[in-house]
Amino acid sequence: MLKEMLSNVQKNSPLVHSITNYVTVNDCANIILASGASPIMADDIGEVCDITSICNSLVINMGTLNERTIKSMIAAGKKANELNHPIVFDPVGAGASALRNETALKLLEEVKFSVIRGNISEIKFLASKSGNTKGVDASTGDSVNEDNLLEVVSFAKNFSKKTGAVIAITGAIDIVADENKAYIIKNGHPMMSKVTGTGCMLTALIGGYIGANSKNILEATTTAVVSMGLCGELAYENLLKVDGGTGSYRMFIIDFMSKLTGEILEEGGKIESK
Amino acid sequence: MLKEMLSNVQKNSPLVHSITNYVTVNDCANIILASGASPIMADDIGEVCDITSICNSLVINMGTLNERTIKSMIAAGKKANELNHPIVFDPVGAGASALRNETALKLLEEVKFSVIRGNISEIKFLASKSGNTKGVDASTGDSVNEDNLLEVVSFAKNFSKKTGAVIAITGAIDIVADENKAYIIKNGHPMMSKVTGTGCMLTALIGGYIGANSKNILEATTTAVVSMGLCGELAYENLLKVDGGTGSYRMFIIDFMSKLTGEILEEGGKIESK
Amino acid sequence: MLKEMLSNVQKNSPLVHSITNYVTVNDCANIILASGASPIMADDIGEVCDITSICNSLVINMGTLNERTIKSMIAAGKKANELNHPIVFDPVGAGASALRNETALKLLEEVKFSVIRGNISEIKFLASKSGNTKGVDASTGDSVNEDNLLEVVSFAKNFSKKTGAVIAITGAIDIVADENKAYIIKNGHPMMSKVTGTGCMLTALIGGYIGANSKNILEATTTAVVSMGLCGELAYENLLKVDGGTGSYRMFIIDFMSKLTGEILEEGGKIESK
Repeated sequence: MLKEMLSNVQKNSPLVHSITNYVTVNDCANIILASGASPIMADDIGEVCDITSICNSLVINMGTLNERTIKSMIAAGKKANELNHPIVFDPVGAGASALRNETALKLLEEVKFSVIRGNISEIKFLASKSGNTKGVDASTGDSVNEDNLLEVVSFAKNFSKKTGAVIAITGAIDIVADENKAYIIKNGHPMMSKVTGTGCMLTALIGGYIGANSKNILEATTTAVVSMGLCGELAYENLLKVDGGTGSYRMFIIDFMSKLTGEILEEGGKIESK
Repeated sequence: MLKEMLSNVQKNSPLVHSITNYVTVNDCANIILASGASPIMADDIGEVCDITSICNSLVINMGTLNERTIKSMIAAGKKANELNHPIVFDPVGAGASALRNETALKLLEEVKFSVIRGNISEIKFLASKSGNTKGVDASTGDSVNEDNLLEVVSFAKNFSKKTGAVIAITGAIDIVADENKAYIIKNGHPMMSKVTGTGCMLTALIGGYIGANSKNILEATTTAVVSMGLCGELAYENLLKVDGGTGSYRMFIIDFMSKLTGEILEEGGKIESK
Repeated sequence: MLKEMLSNVQKNSPLVHSITNYVTVNDCANIILASGASPIMADDIGEVCDITSICNSLVINMGTLNERTIKSMIAAGKKANELNHPIVFDPVGAGASALRNETALKLLEEVKFSVIRGNISEIKFLASKSGNTKGVDASTGDSVNEDNLLEVVSFAKNFSKKTGAVIAITGAIDIVADENKAYIIKNGHPMMSKVTGTGCMLTALIGGYIGANSKNILEATTTAVVSMGLCGELAYENLLKVDGGTGSYRMFIIDFMSKLTGEILEEGGKIESK
């Protein structure tokens, strides 16, 4: 699975339209290129439909949303739906402000997403506000660990059923689920949280993977998640050799993504299905 | 002092809300993370008050200001004042355009800043336009050196008295002053001026330090200035080993920030008080 | 020629006003600094004329154009024309959306550019839409190679005659032409296309070179193109030594730009004139 998904990205080099934040946009573009796909960033309402039309997939990341770009997200999302292009949504900071909350819920209403990726808090927020409270309670907490893993898997499957989107909940343990099946991924390294945008980069990467594997959204998303986590591990091993810090670490993540092969993925991927 | 200030950042991991420019925003987020604090970038008028409310401090940097974000800066500044959150202001390019000048003065009028950080030209511009011309004359010139140091210290103290903010004037020699006391810092390296955003990164860093040390704004700001200068020195030493250029230099600055300890700070800090 | 052009950049350190995209803006600022020039990024209609007035040259890059910044591009362009400041235009993605197409053509109509830099598709689009179809036909294709080289050179000269701008068409082989003379440059490395913004960085670099050599736009542009390609080659050689990927490669390009000398340029430049 992993090998095939990556191979399709490298072979097809899908064009990925991203409407994303200005904090991490450069890293997002570079990680898309590193994976073998091609990025186009464009966010003006006057062109997002044109741009989406020539692309293979769409990324909507609401990291630094504003009144102008919210409209563009919705317009591009609708256009991509019309064209049956896969769309990944990153509800950055959902729960942190009324504007983010309203925007996330509006997007969920007006656009059909192929994948929704966030941390457990963001996804729980979306699920609870959109009326799906099953599996969301205090006991789930704000991190995924061995104790609540099965509960979160069940929650992710339910939320996938509700939205029709593959749900990717990432953190120390990652879960990627559709309504029937979930993959649990244990790649990654804690230092990834000390670099801004590793979540955004993963979402961007998913954009490329689903663009090249539009018939296998669950597997494509899982492979993107494994890729990112594994590059985080390889980058950390490399960091120890050069005694670097978080600046070097960020660069090494992109380095390893650009050198990733199916063999490295198959050997290093730590996944199980539930 | 240095050790305690840094330790509070690492221990409390303050949330820093930044309304900043799109040129250096990624480096600002990464240096905040490297120091142990956490960044949130958000600039839409519809959410800046919500975001500021959940943070510990606010950074306002007018590097690529525009009509939309100017309103957000003022709204967020007022909210932060209401909540007694410390605010650092970076008047990037004050003096370079009428819009920048008006915006800087408007911000000074409507928002009470805890810290104002800029180069000598920017700070002199603010001081002269806001009616405080004492100590600002041709002889001060546009750089701080041994000859005009005491004069600039006196100017900084006066401007601090006028504004109620700690004044950080950075360049070859750095001065951090409140109305009664000034610290003179001689860390840093000339190559820092060959990387875009080392000033913005310092302002972002101050955001984290004052968020974690809100009762000690002068000392917190001084420690942030020492940290940045010292990482600039350590990065330069490292650069010589690998025969790198300004690209590597930028990365090493963030690397050393992420590896900074109280011991390194106490050993390398070159500060005196006046 | 090469040595003199670079020397003027390093000696005069021209101020370069850039209205550019938020994806690659940080790399653009850093490569301008690395070359010895100084960047100012500002895009609000309320200040672009002021900012352009204190600069030596203007860069207009429409990578992430929007309604707000399009107006700023036109206003700044007209002001720079009024002041006889050289302007370089990067029609990023011309041909990809109606908004981009209209904007590019509007800019060509309202602003007199000193240099237009793009890939062959973008430049062909501009030429065909602005009524200059000579030399633009199917046989030219979408890349420049030994077979169509002379045809593209002739096309570039014609388009230069039509617009009055030096035309820089970059790709595997680069062509820089005015109506009478063309330089063909064979520096560079294919890996440059795996880093986002190497084209934008080149345009930014041209901004510095023409700011410091406003009487020699053709030679200045050619030298910038050689510089970028050569740094791409040197970065690649270095990459092999450290077994890095595209993240390191991007950094090395900036590293070598900051260490570039006239001697390195003269020795490594692969140019011929037609």
